[in-house]
Amino acid sequence: MRLWLTQFKTLSKEDKKLIASIKTIVGSKPFNLKPYKIATQHTSVAKSVKDGVKESNERLEYLGDAVLGLVVANYIFKKYPYKDEGFLTEIRSRIVSRDSLNLLARKIGVNHIVQFDTRRKTPNSHKSIYGNTLEALIGAVYVDQGFNRSQKFIVNKLLIPHFDIEEIISTTKNYKSKLIEWSQKNGKTTSFELLETKEKTHFKEFVIQVLIDDEPIAKGHGLSKKKAEQDAAREACISLEIE
Amino acid sequence: MRLWLTQFKTLSKEDKKLIASIKTIVGSKPFNLKPYKIATQHTSVAKSVKDGVKESNERLEYLGDAVLGLVVANYIFKKYPYKDEGFLTEIRSRIVSRDSLNLLARKIGVNHIVQFDTRRKTPNSHKSIYGNTLEALIGAVYVDQGFNRSQKFIVNKLLIPHFDIEEIISTTKNYKSKLIEWSQKNGKTTSFELLETKEKTHFKEFVIQVLIDDEPIAKGHGLSKKKAEQDAAREACISLEIE
Repeated sequence: MRLWLTQFKTLSKEDKKLIASIKTIVGSKPFNLKPYKIATQHTSVAKSVKDGVKESNERLEYLGDAVLGLVVANYIFKKYPYKDEGFLTEIRSRIVSRDSLNLLARKIGVNHIVQFDTRRKTPNSHKSIYGNTLEALIGAVYVDQGFNRSQKFIVNKLLIPHFDIEEIISTTKNYKSKLIEWSQKNGKTTSFELLETKEKTHFKEFVIQVLIDDEPIAKGHGLSKKKAEQDAAREACISLEIE
Repeated sequence: MRLWLTQFKTLSKEDKKLIASIKTIVGSKPFNLKPYKIATQHTSVAKSVKDGVKESNERLEYLGDAVLGLVVANYIFKKYPYKDEGFLTEIRSRIVSRDSLNLLARKIGVNHIVQFDTRRKTPNSHKSIYGNTLEALIGAVYVDQGFNRSQKFIVNKLLIPHFDIEEIISTTKNYKSKLIEWSQKNGKTTSFELLETKEKTHFKEFVIQVLIDDEPIAKGHGLSKKKAEQDAAREACISLEIE
């Protein structure tokens, strides 16, 4: 803490502003500002430090992704003691998806602290900058303050205020149940058929087909059979214009 | 601790045996035996607890996978401060791969504590039982003893004694450098070409083609460009019979 006070006196105006932002976003003051400064630097503005490796936020993003993964896994594990791992995996992947993190990052103001070169990036790669920076910020909190405080940040500042898990569950189940409901109303039968299991080096991918009255309607892909079914049901709802 | 001693008196012979095994494998005694008992029960022998959900080790496996992911990510992050996130991701995925965990689980004796129904499983699904049980055991340590002790278990009992990371790095780089070395010896040029980027729901997959003297030789797939290159180089080494 003493170190921190000494450090504070020599801080620039920008650094003090960053500290204030971190305090608001994370809920606690940094001990060491360095990892947070790195976290807010996109690779397009980062300087090279050694052997061509840039001091960009990508290393912290890799670490933060793993911290977020564990904290969210544990949170859902404890919240739903009687749900199976397929359910837990599905809910987690919805929470930590690119779209979800990009949206969350903007909500909590990460877009105001990230630095990137607007000329060098295409609009598409811009989209994920905020979500990636949020992961890097989680990585910085982990490096600076350890696991327990990272967990507090994620649970108290991200999960509880910004995610309605019951809502996620209901929309997650939606497509398959929507499709089955529609089929029953219209006197049709819905079935799902595993077409293919692709064995990749580090994972499996499933391809599932949905049939209405034995006629193939749509295909879906996913890292689990459940996800592939949902994906197929979603495609079927779109093509059959079921709202 | 008092609770633990009280609990100990009422333990069966099997429970005492399990405690001794856990002490050897994990390096510390359990506070509460229950999660460890669940961790050693494969779904084929697990009993139903509620709404058809079995008290099998799959939920703990889901949690342990995330704990292992973070601990390994952090270990490599700190060990290689100047390596980029592509390198870190690659090394981590080699350490936590199915094959690697299955082998490790047998080495440390997880195969002696897992219970499963030998009649119900095909030989192929047997293969991953040990690795999955190891992940479930990590999950149990996390539930019982928290993050710091799980980290100690993983680093001191798994990573340090069983993984030679320099060896992993050299074999990871092998195929691409082997192929380039062979090309140079034979006066040929090797190049890699990105054929396709498949945008999946929760990840991207890259397809890369390797060309020798501008002639396509092999294709590779992977979750990063580096992995896809390695995969393509591996295929090329096989088809060109480069040892």
